[in-house]
Amino acid sequence: MTANTNIRTVDLNSDMGEGFGAYRLGDDEEILKVVSSANVACGFHAGDPEIMATTFRQAKEHGVSVGAHPSFSDLWGFGRRYIPHSTGEIERLVAYQIGAAQALSRYAGHPITHVKAHGALGNLAQTDAGVAGAVTRAIKAVDPSLICLAIALGHQERIAREAGLVVKSEIFADRAYAEDGSLVARKIAGAVIHDPHLAAARVVRMVTAGAIETLSGKSIPTRIDSICVHSDTPAAIRIAGEVRKALASAGFEIRSFSP
Amino acid sequence: MTANTNIRTVDLNSDMGEGFGAYRLGDDEEILKVVSSANVACGFHAGDPEIMATTFRQAKEHGVSVGAHPSFSDLWGFGRRYIPHSTGEIERLVAYQIGAAQALSRYAGHPITHVKAHGALGNLAQTDAGVAGAVTRAIKAVDPSLICLAIALGHQERIAREAGLVVKSEIFADRAYAEDGSLVARKIAGAVIHDPHLAAARVVRMVTAGAIETLSGKSIPTRIDSICVHSDTPAAIRIAGEVRKALASAGFEIRSFSP
Amino acid sequence: MTANTNIRTVDLNSDMGEGFGAYRLGDDEEILKVVSSANVACGFHAGDPEIMATTFRQAKEHGVSVGAHPSFSDLWGFGRRYIPHSTGEIERLVAYQIGAAQALSRYAGHPITHVKAHGALGNLAQTDAGVAGAVTRAIKAVDPSLICLAIALGHQERIAREAGLVVKSEIFADRAYAEDGSLVARKIAGAVIHDPHLAAARVVRMVTAGAIETLSGKSIPTRIDSICVHSDTPAAIRIAGEVRKALASAGFEIRSFSP
Amino acid sequence: MTANTNIRTVDLNSDMGEGFGAYRLGDDEEILKVVSSANVACGFHAGDPEIMATTFRQAKEHGVSVGAHPSFSDLWGFGRRYIPHSTGEIERLVAYQIGAAQALSRYAGHPITHVKAHGALGNLAQTDAGVAGAVTRAIKAVDPSLICLAIALGHQERIAREAGLVVKSEIFADRAYAEDGSLVARKIAGAVIHDPHLAAARVVRMVTAGAIETLSGKSIPTRIDSICVHSDTPAAIRIAGEVRKALASAGFEIRSFSP
Repeated sequence: MTANTNIRTVDLNSDMGEGFGAYRLGDDEEILKVVSSANVACGFHAGDPEIMATTFRQAKEHGVSVGAHPSFSDLWGFGRRYIPHSTGEIERLVAYQIGAAQALSRYAGHPITHVKAHGALGNLAQTDAGVAGAVTRAIKAVDPSLICLAIALGHQERIAREAGLVVKSEIFADRAYAEDGSLVARKIAGAVIHDPHLAAARVVRMVTAGAIETLSGKSIPTRIDSICVHSDTPAAIRIAGEVRKALASAGFEIRSFSP
Repeated sequence: MTANTNIRTVDLNSDMGEGFGAYRLGDDEEILKVVSSANVACGFHAGDPEIMATTFRQAKEHGVSVGAHPSFSDLWGFGRRYIPHSTGEIERLVAYQIGAAQALSRYAGHPITHVKAHGALGNLAQTDAGVAGAVTRAIKAVDPSLICLAIALGHQERIAREAGLVVKSEIFADRAYAEDGSLVARKIAGAVIHDPHLAAARVVRMVTAGAIETLSGKSIPTRIDSICVHSDTPAAIRIAGEVRKALASAGFEIRSFSP
Repeated sequence: MTANTNIRTVDLNSDMGEGFGAYRLGDDEEILKVVSSANVACGFHAGDPEIMATTFRQAKEHGVSVGAHPSFSDLWGFGRRYIPHSTGEIERLVAYQIGAAQALSRYAGHPITHVKAHGALGNLAQTDAGVAGAVTRAIKAVDPSLICLAIALGHQERIAREAGLVVKSEIFADRAYAEDGSLVARKIAGAVIHDPHLAAARVVRMVTAGAIETLSGKSIPTRIDSICVHSDTPAAIRIAGEVRKALASAGFEIRSFSP
Repeated sequence: MTANTNIRTVDLNSDMGEGFGAYRLGDDEEILKVVSSANVACGFHAGDPEIMATTFRQAKEHGVSVGAHPSFSDLWGFGRRYIPHSTGEIERLVAYQIGAAQALSRYAGHPITHVKAHGALGNLAQTDAGVAGAVTRAIKAVDPSLICLAIALGHQERIAREAGLVVKSEIFADRAYAEDGSLVARKIAGAVIHDPHLAAARVVRMVTAGAIETLSGKSIPTRIDSICVHSDTPAAIRIAGEVRKALASAGFEIRSFSP
């Protein structure tokens, strides 16, 4: 990092450690060359103690910050199903997973610095203030110094900030935004951006403008600390690489939001 | 606690929070009136985030210290089966569980202060130096201030102490000891003591003498910091109650080994 | 059974084999003295191969017919949570569980003769025609000779019958009925009948009348082949016993609907 | 099939349906073009109702016979760990899985015709007469018309045959044999054959001779009904393809042992 205070930084984050026993999704080795933060599965939708420790170690080697990526308990559904829970239950299952990630990241010599809710839990935390509050309370109870990584413009971002947590806001590299700033549902045409160059150019525009760009071209101002990219297909990794390259060309330094 | 330095103290510990979802084993409310330390299941042989948080809260109300009670991942076998693992795998599954217990105990306002391995893992840690070392390394890596509660006269006790952990040694209220100081296997006649008064009198003799008593009547000197009692049957709770009463009558104060 | 064709018969059914590994709910030995049909958990919300085989054997000894009791895959939530599934997924998870129950019941020498959906799946099959169709298709695909035990007046009953399955209809001994014939939600006052004598008298009235009795006293005619009773508390078993006694006094023979 | 009675047939079998939820191992579409029989995971080491039904359907489309591939309950360890069980427990967990596979294969319109034990369970069934007997009793109890596919020269083969089951014997395309006819442990150099042409030539020699070939070149006569090939790596699929080609060139028809 230079002394030039004009250098703007932005984080690239990706879900990682998505495996269980003999199974693996995603190419963690490749995506670790691209991102600055990794959200590590904690055993409820993916992840086991072996994979978690390995992922924390690999992230350390690549200088990538790590966070807990808690989820509903749903190995079969990969955490993507909306499983009914009370907010109290959500507090406790999030706390459990943060603790497991803290322990294994310490064991691996690379302690977690953030928490990001996964899948259906993450989506609910964006749209449901009760769930956002539950995730917030879990983080505060276990370790209030952990950063809450939240989807830009959702309940999680606002409620965690009001509760005194450090909050970082993320946008998605490959997902279209609706007029209200929410993500367009995957089943709708145009919801997912497949072209790496289009995705990268859009990300640069959004980060430069400090605003998300909706499908209709509208701009909604928001804080943008991180770009979420994926590693589960070769195409996703290409998008991630292009996003990184384009941001660098535009003068952004890719750096974790964690201190 | 009086200023009388002659008052000797001893801890009573029991496994707790042994349930999963709709299921419960043991009568935690009753045993919490008797013991001074609780070993709380962490989700691998028993326990889920709900039960863990509830157990930590109940223990706090009763002034009972709490610890993590990690196990092999064996919900079906209740952690009693010897499931093949490398020592590295044991390190990581123990670390995971300690972390989960730390988080939920902080969430419940009553942080854990010790770790005791459960079932087959605990037995192996007593008899197998490799496993004892793995449990030790996990505790050190996650939080070296945690006390290791170990079976008296086994490898766990020695190896954890050599590694610099604070170690407390436990004997069993209702289990007979063989000539080498190991527990007599349950299938052998006389292995389990069913009479509460016999059990209590034997415990008082052992704690007073600072030695375990073998089936043949031999004495093997050992440090005794805690007595392990059970809560899974009404008979077990009666034994626990008698042990507490007899120890009190003999002048012992029942107090957790945790500061 | 006598030649007297005036003897009316009715079945009493209860969920059974509700345990997992070291855990048990309900007192199967006691309820087996009361009922004529048992719905046996198949491993998804409760049940493992050991408990299933034991339950089939015990039912055989008591002359109690057995059926599969499939559920959402939800060990933690005991099958009571509405977990999102496509109807295709429901077909396949029901088929899987029926097969497992067929195999273990044959192994135990007492083949299953019916299927009854459990918990949230059973409730959905009553209120959601899509789910009722999925359960129906699973039964037909695996073994169309299996009887479908369905809640009276719901979609499951109608759709399974239209599909050509033999359908038997059940009412609940301890649950109040709303004006539309559906069960009053448990959280509403009066939803659960706790007095064994009131419950038994109501059952006799309903079976005699061939109609369910709503909270307001209205009668809704329905076929009644079986009364569902519970075994999970001593109070539930007392209700079951009273229901049996009252039905016998009123001249009903308690007999399984299975041939 | 021609009337030429000189045409000799041999089966090629492979494990299939090895996935869980979002996870997949192996390339089932590719291996289905090569083999004549598929051993389908039943949910205990891999497999869920979705994957099972899909695999049965795909096998049907390719004209490939299917069987149940039961395992210890060990999703994390992929059924490769020797988990302690009584022989009675093995009977029941095998019965459960056969039933599940029967139901889903009927649902898919392609009923299973054989059973082959997986991983650690399969290895034990070869070397431990008690386990071989347990697997045998499970098959007989659930459906004695199912063929037992067993490793050549082991206990499973002999005991299942003595019990009256139809037994088919398999050899491995890519594994070296020790002097006693057992498989050389994977950790020993030369245990696994990586060259597709060497593997294929050896298979042709063994099938032609009706004998396995040991590392030292010794011949041990055995019945050979099937060749086990793998699908978990592109290399494994190449070996499978070469084996098929070489057998065809040598005049063998690749055909399932199932009628």
